[in-house]
Amino acid sequence: MSQQSTTMPTRREGAVTKRMMLVSGGAHPALAEALADHLDTTVAPRVAHVFANGETFVRFEKSLRGCDVFLVQSFTEQLNTWLMEALITVDALKRASAKRITVILPFYPYGRQDKKHRGREPISARLVSDLFATAGANRLMSVDLHTAQTQGFFNGPVDHLLAQPLLADHIRRSHPTAALTVVAPDSGRVRLAERWADLLGGCPIAFIQHRDALHAQHPDATQIVGDVEGRLCVVVDDMIDTGATMTGATRLLLSKGAFSVVAAATHGVFSGDAVDHLAASGIHQVVVTDTVPIPFVRRFPQLTVLPIAPLLAKAIRAVFDDGSVTNLFDGHA
Amino acid sequence: MSQQSTTMPTRREGAVTKRMMLVSGGAHPALAEALADHLDTTVAPRVAHVFANGETFVRFEKSLRGCDVFLVQSFTEQLNTWLMEALITVDALKRASAKRITVILPFYPYGRQDKKHRGREPISARLVSDLFATAGANRLMSVDLHTAQTQGFFNGPVDHLLAQPLLADHIRRSHPTAALTVVAPDSGRVRLAERWADLLGGCPIAFIQHRDALHAQHPDATQIVGDVEGRLCVVVDDMIDTGATMTGATRLLLSKGAFSVVAAATHGVFSGDAVDHLAASGIHQVVVTDTVPIPFVRRFPQLTVLPIAPLLAKAIRAVFDDGSVTNLFDGHA
Amino acid sequence: MSQQSTTMPTRREGAVTKRMMLVSGGAHPALAEALADHLDTTVAPRVAHVFANGETFVRFEKSLRGCDVFLVQSFTEQLNTWLMEALITVDALKRASAKRITVILPFYPYGRQDKKHRGREPISARLVSDLFATAGANRLMSVDLHTAQTQGFFNGPVDHLLAQPLLADHIRRSHPTAALTVVAPDSGRVRLAERWADLLGGCPIAFIQHRDALHAQHPDATQIVGDVEGRLCVVVDDMIDTGATMTGATRLLLSKGAFSVVAAATHGVFSGDAVDHLAASGIHQVVVTDTVPIPFVRRFPQLTVLPIAPLLAKAIRAVFDDGSVTNLFDGHA
Amino acid sequence: MSQQSTTMPTRREGAVTKRMMLVSGGAHPALAEALADHLDTTVAPRVAHVFANGETFVRFEKSLRGCDVFLVQSFTEQLNTWLMEALITVDALKRASAKRITVILPFYPYGRQDKKHRGREPISARLVSDLFATAGANRLMSVDLHTAQTQGFFNGPVDHLLAQPLLADHIRRSHPTAALTVVAPDSGRVRLAERWADLLGGCPIAFIQHRDALHAQHPDATQIVGDVEGRLCVVVDDMIDTGATMTGATRLLLSKGAFSVVAAATHGVFSGDAVDHLAASGIHQVVVTDTVPIPFVRRFPQLTVLPIAPLLAKAIRAVFDDGSVTNLFDGHA
Amino acid sequence: MSQQSTTMPTRREGAVTKRMMLVSGGAHPALAEALADHLDTTVAPRVAHVFANGETFVRFEKSLRGCDVFLVQSFTEQLNTWLMEALITVDALKRASAKRITVILPFYPYGRQDKKHRGREPISARLVSDLFATAGANRLMSVDLHTAQTQGFFNGPVDHLLAQPLLADHIRRSHPTAALTVVAPDSGRVRLAERWADLLGGCPIAFIQHRDALHAQHPDATQIVGDVEGRLCVVVDDMIDTGATMTGATRLLLSKGAFSVVAAATHGVFSGDAVDHLAASGIHQVVVTDTVPIPFVRRFPQLTVLPIAPLLAKAIRAVFDDGSVTNLFDGHA
Amino acid sequence: MSQQSTTMPTRREGAVTKRMMLVSGGAHPALAEALADHLDTTVAPRVAHVFANGETFVRFEKSLRGCDVFLVQSFTEQLNTWLMEALITVDALKRASAKRITVILPFYPYGRQDKKHRGREPISARLVSDLFATAGANRLMSVDLHTAQTQGFFNGPVDHLLAQPLLADHIRRSHPTAALTVVAPDSGRVRLAERWADLLGGCPIAFIQHRDALHAQHPDATQIVGDVEGRLCVVVDDMIDTGATMTGATRLLLSKGAFSVVAAATHGVFSGDAVDHLAASGIHQVVVTDTVPIPFVRRFPQLTVLPIAPLLAKAIRAVFDDGSVTNLFDGHA
Repeated sequence: MSQQSTTMPTRREGAVTKRMMLVSGGAHPALAEALADHLDTTVAPRVAHVFANGETFVRFEKSLRGCDVFLVQSFTEQLNTWLMEALITVDALKRASAKRITVILPFYPYGRQDKKHRGREPISARLVSDLFATAGANRLMSVDLHTAQTQGFFNGPVDHLLAQPLLADHIRRSHPTAALTVVAPDSGRVRLAERWADLLGGCPIAFIQHRDALHAQHPDATQIVGDVEGRLCVVVDDMIDTGATMTGATRLLLSKGAFSVVAAATHGVFSGDAVDHLAASGIHQVVVTDTVPIPFVRRFPQLTVLPIAPLLAKAIRAVFDDGSVTNLFDGHA
Repeated sequence: MSQQSTTMPTRREGAVTKRMMLVSGGAHPALAEALADHLDTTVAPRVAHVFANGETFVRFEKSLRGCDVFLVQSFTEQLNTWLMEALITVDALKRASAKRITVILPFYPYGRQDKKHRGREPISARLVSDLFATAGANRLMSVDLHTAQTQGFFNGPVDHLLAQPLLADHIRRSHPTAALTVVAPDSGRVRLAERWADLLGGCPIAFIQHRDALHAQHPDATQIVGDVEGRLCVVVDDMIDTGATMTGATRLLLSKGAFSVVAAATHGVFSGDAVDHLAASGIHQVVVTDTVPIPFVRRFPQLTVLPIAPLLAKAIRAVFDDGSVTNLFDGHA
Repeated sequence: MSQQSTTMPTRREGAVTKRMMLVSGGAHPALAEALADHLDTTVAPRVAHVFANGETFVRFEKSLRGCDVFLVQSFTEQLNTWLMEALITVDALKRASAKRITVILPFYPYGRQDKKHRGREPISARLVSDLFATAGANRLMSVDLHTAQTQGFFNGPVDHLLAQPLLADHIRRSHPTAALTVVAPDSGRVRLAERWADLLGGCPIAFIQHRDALHAQHPDATQIVGDVEGRLCVVVDDMIDTGATMTGATRLLLSKGAFSVVAAATHGVFSGDAVDHLAASGIHQVVVTDTVPIPFVRRFPQLTVLPIAPLLAKAIRAVFDDGSVTNLFDGHA
Repeated sequence: MSQQSTTMPTRREGAVTKRMMLVSGGAHPALAEALADHLDTTVAPRVAHVFANGETFVRFEKSLRGCDVFLVQSFTEQLNTWLMEALITVDALKRASAKRITVILPFYPYGRQDKKHRGREPISARLVSDLFATAGANRLMSVDLHTAQTQGFFNGPVDHLLAQPLLADHIRRSHPTAALTVVAPDSGRVRLAERWADLLGGCPIAFIQHRDALHAQHPDATQIVGDVEGRLCVVVDDMIDTGATMTGATRLLLSKGAFSVVAAATHGVFSGDAVDHLAASGIHQVVVTDTVPIPFVRRFPQLTVLPIAPLLAKAIRAVFDDGSVTNLFDGHA
Repeated sequence: MSQQSTTMPTRREGAVTKRMMLVSGGAHPALAEALADHLDTTVAPRVAHVFANGETFVRFEKSLRGCDVFLVQSFTEQLNTWLMEALITVDALKRASAKRITVILPFYPYGRQDKKHRGREPISARLVSDLFATAGANRLMSVDLHTAQTQGFFNGPVDHLLAQPLLADHIRRSHPTAALTVVAPDSGRVRLAERWADLLGGCPIAFIQHRDALHAQHPDATQIVGDVEGRLCVVVDDMIDTGATMTGATRLLLSKGAFSVVAAATHGVFSGDAVDHLAASGIHQVVVTDTVPIPFVRRFPQLTVLPIAPLLAKAIRAVFDDGSVTNLFDGHA
Repeated sequence: MSQQSTTMPTRREGAVTKRMMLVSGGAHPALAEALADHLDTTVAPRVAHVFANGETFVRFEKSLRGCDVFLVQSFTEQLNTWLMEALITVDALKRASAKRITVILPFYPYGRQDKKHRGREPISARLVSDLFATAGANRLMSVDLHTAQTQGFFNGPVDHLLAQPLLADHIRRSHPTAALTVVAPDSGRVRLAERWADLLGGCPIAFIQHRDALHAQHPDATQIVGDVEGRLCVVVDDMIDTGATMTGATRLLLSKGAFSVVAAATHGVFSGDAVDHLAASGIHQVVVTDTVPIPFVRRFPQLTVLPIAPLLAKAIRAVFDDGSVTNLFDGHA
């Protein structure tokens, strides 16, 4: 080899460039497509299927060496399958030399199991963070965690986005704010209700007190603290799962003289008979985002679904560009 | 060497025994002494001092090879010094071949910094757990964590004790329960108030709503949701730090016609001018435990301090004996 | 406290005892019951269910502090759900202070994804080991791993049991060994066939060669190497999944003049239409163990199921007693 | 300092560039030189020697801060010394702020100890991966691992290159493919033989069955399955170590009427008396690559050595450039 | 979305740039400002305060995503508070997505507790390294570690700068080198004295022998080995803490006929009554650097303080630029 | 199974016992045998050999499940081979379910490479600790580490034994202490010499100053600080490797009028021509221990070898029994 030949370019140096790669888990491809649109890119081609015996297989068609990868996975029916699929995908990305792997969980699974409610329980929300770290995830992104402390379960950067401003903006434009009272469906959501009240111009709040089993015979086992008579009640929560909470709150509020009830939550899980119960509960409107896919069969008349992709796309861009977009993230105002 | 000589005892086998060793950090030696009394043992002799340049030194006088060590450290003034002292003590225990190291933090430091309240903040409560794990702690024990999710910050067993039954029992025996209303001093403590209401026989609850900076001009920037007029209000919290929350709540409740105000909290930190402000606030009684040392200068007339040692001693014994004492631990009922 | 009172027992010392606790995952409760019978113990009571939204919940009813826990989980339909259930159970055990957690996976999931068959694939078998380590497992036990190298994926003790002697013993007692030829259904199983041949008294072996896609037009895309005409062919594999391999082998062998075909495999997964295809393939007998549950609907006339519990129970006892039972484990003879 | 002076360039920003650095371990400097030629770079100057007491010392002469380092080490006589030298070199690279450290092990040491063949053995192949990870290696590259599962022992990217196409191409050009039969020297190599058969145009295969000790008196303790009479047999393996396998296979094949025997393997270890035995075995040709250095004293008449540097250089370039070169890597075609 | 529109810039690729961010801990802001001057940058705005209860809080005002961060913290009074502040700052930086975090500890805290001097002591210097690694530090930089082995406590790059040339240069220019004798104040510093002697042109050295407690009655419990009569003695150490060592050495040297005594040390800790004792000891001059802040109240007449910022700034620039500046670092000449 | 049958013993509980197992590496079997004698036990049977290609193989013949294992390995010629053998043995012990693995390295390998002496060097002494931790070692035991800071390289208990009292006792009984002067062969060993002086009744000390390369022309490039004329000089060091240091010191001391020279060191490595040089140097006596095996060919007339087994055996017994034997360990008197 001739080292003297200076005209020949040597391979020893070069500028470092970064390439974004958007990867979609199998649970919510429409969200990934929407993100690709907003980010002016395409979803990376991926082979993924479940074998007859229940094992999940994943393979990428194109090289992703050195890429800055954003994997989007939602969690709907067959939640554990989507979780394992996401972990296996991260493993494949790691072994294929992705430079950085950001896992976007618009709806964080097992978020409610964030402490031992009684003895000898798991803390599954911590486990989920640890499993992703083990598989090879470098950072997480999520929307409206059940409790913000879940950020601390991951030992690295977590981008915690807030969809409440999006939901509150929709409510504010649809209803006269002077008529609104924000209602927490239980004592654990009063802080959330207070933040909503601030977003809705400082309107009043109320909450529903639940007495425990010892006092279940109490005539007011469930009662409202605060004034709701004649008010347009906005019941707020992070998610609507079986709908039992919202359905019960609606019935109680109407029985106590509320003028009307609107439910607002970030995650529209609608599991089991949620749709039927909500549709029949007398509720006026239910507003959620599409962090979880909502198939047509679950789209009942009172439901409004706001797209989450614009918020996520802004955050992805900020992460990729190392930009500063504080207002998107945890810590409102 | 003759292997045939069967009368000579070989050293190759033996029964495994366990020895408890109780170690006290420097912040609250009286608590360690009280624990030793309850456990019928003594506090292990330890050399500990701070050098002129501020470095902390620790050394154990006696062997602790193979011991099941329980280190008790509280956190009062010079909190960071006590934290580093505890970490250094754990390192010394690890290197001296302790078999298992349980760190008892009756008051968990940095418990309120359990999430990023705004962008670019630390999650110091998680950091504290990680620092103890790094130093060599095998398990943690604490009382009334600021949020129960903090359990999940430690990747191992955490015994989360509840002092509320102790406090509630004291309140119940001192006041007519029919007259009581439990008051949460802010929206984040309503869940706590609800648990208190259950402990006090299903009494009513109220809470104080705080409007944020945007609505600070609102005539009712701070207002009470729920009925307090003529009631004996028990304002509940996990800790009393500067006393500003309790003082403000007392004034507001009395101005709204409350008959009397009692404050109950697990941790009596009383930092800054807390004692003066509380003593002058019109409050009827303040009940805390001694998870944090409360020197005589901070013992004002309205203050009642309940000993935490009996609860901790029961838990230590259960951990040492591998016993089952669920009712002590997290998960009431 | 009086230290002089020597008659009072101090709590500072005690003998260390060990307690076995047998825990069953939800996939194969009958196996856990059989193990309990063999071990003269009972299965620990556990609450476990799947919420409507797909999340798995686990809780133990009784204390397991300090126990030597053996968790048995199999992997059948909804494999990912059983995997997550096992991980969550391990997390709960770890946080409840189990002393040692041995996870028994009679059928190791994702065992075939033990390498990148092509570029940009995951190595899911390694991931599974890492996930269990992360959750808190101290050791693994499994039967007839797809490849023995999988032992090395876990960074700790792995007890690798062999069911082949069990299966071979059954074959040997049912058929004249002089008539037998062991057949590997593909080139990767010839080593296995060779071990079988040794177990069956040194009988001859053959295998089926598969030409790859490039040579698919070859008249003998699939052909037999070795002599099978007039022989009683025992086709051996670690598992029967979709049955396609065994069905194809049976047809080919019979077409080449084999007298009769018997299939023997440790894991009877029988996914998809396996049962129908096998039953119709002309196969004489299929022998498996119950490492995977085999419901009645999958029990076709030619099927013989041997119980795996006796082998597992011996190994559990050896682990608990720190005994030496080499002959059970990996490394035959 | 004047912040107003905008004409002065601030040091706060800059483009990130990457520099490749090729480092050679002491075992096979000729291979590193060949790689440098192919990559149009030079081998980084390094001081390395063994002290009189057996300790290895390494030091780099020039800064390698921020470099993308490729360390090449082979494993020949004094294998443990080369292994420790490589680990110590990685430690020096890590502490000298290399940005990424790729360790190239053309011949992976301890690759055959990839499982416990019997009880109470190490899994040294896993240990080797862990030792490199501990020292600071970020990724590994190797050629024709003894078993592909070894990839999974390293918890990060592994580039597994295949030299079989190189070897097969040489065979194909030297011999009439119609005359060829691929022979696996034992049952564990039949899969390899099958892949060779595909590379050689779908030619037939055979293998040598070995009966175990129990059946050693069997007249055919070693026998051939498949037809070899009159065939030009290509015996394939991943390595030729002591040569006993190849010598035995050659003698058996010739005694069974094979026309001629050619051996092909990636790694020409040739330890002990391998060269003498092979040269005298009646073998027609032995083809290997130079993943292990082959000094002149081991170059016997029948030996052909193909250079491995072109394949490795392509892979290094692909890793450095984040390029896509799937066809080089594991997963043929 | 239209993928055909090639004129629109896609967001998928971009050059990677690096940005330096200089962050100051609270212990020594003047040093950070001096560094900013030398580096032509500014100190990043940061909110930091200590709550009334002793907890430290930190928050960054501006985004630092993707930055190459250099955190400078010194350790003076309230050493543990500065240590916790630094750890908490690193945690905040990690969670705010800093790309790389270099912690600059001009004076490494707990450096003297680098081994167990007696049984059952901690190794706090190792603990400090581990705590920084746990919080998220990627590399450390320090000046004149108490023992160079402390580098090995951190499992990553450590830049160990030497201030001795700076100090020696000052001494050389102030005094006639022919008159100088370098004196080690105890046996552990003789190696240091030897290095100084080389820096000062090969001048003679002496040291002070200390007999241990058993021999304390010895008439020469402390004695000088080497000649000091009539010499200008330069007593050298890594730090001056309580000043007892230097004061005792000065008195002994003068009593043994030394012409004059000059003390030189990198770290001027001056804790307790150090300043008073030194000023009254008869010492001619004390030369230190400002690795630790030295407030005006500690600036006694004989003291000369040399700025450390130029040395640190060169090293920071080298780290940021991946440059080669060996002469700055550990390993003189 | 009948659970009612209470007379049948259940297998669910049992006392925990501990068994010691002594394992010998291949470097120094005589030391292991001596330890077995002192401990009234036997060395565990182990298969270990090196394959022709240089790979080391290890296998245990008997079960060691649950044992408290003590592995003794020394480091003599082929040091890297003994190191790899020890690591592989630890891996085998870990995978065979040893309860605790203590590695006894009487002579810690790579102890001198405990820092970067110049830039871009490894810190091999730290690497050795990390490699043992990775393989599965739970604790280390060593004698007279080159620097005590090496203890801190292992993140767990390290028993650091001191052989100096043993050596000093021998010297004290062989020579009149009044005539003795302890001499440090270089500036880094003066601390050691001071400790020796205390062990020898407070005798005087001296040391040899070495000027660096810049001053190599100095007439006294090497000179003695302290008085040695007419003295019986005991030159002390932790090890004698090539003997160059001791030979040079002997010649210099004799040329300066020393009456006689005795060398004392813990580790008698004697590599290269050490024995010839020492025997011819005019040295009166060389005293070492057998931490490293000293074959007959290296036993020259002036050499005295003291057995290290009694000291190690006491320490092993203390570790096994969780006893307190501070006086054996680091931290003299």
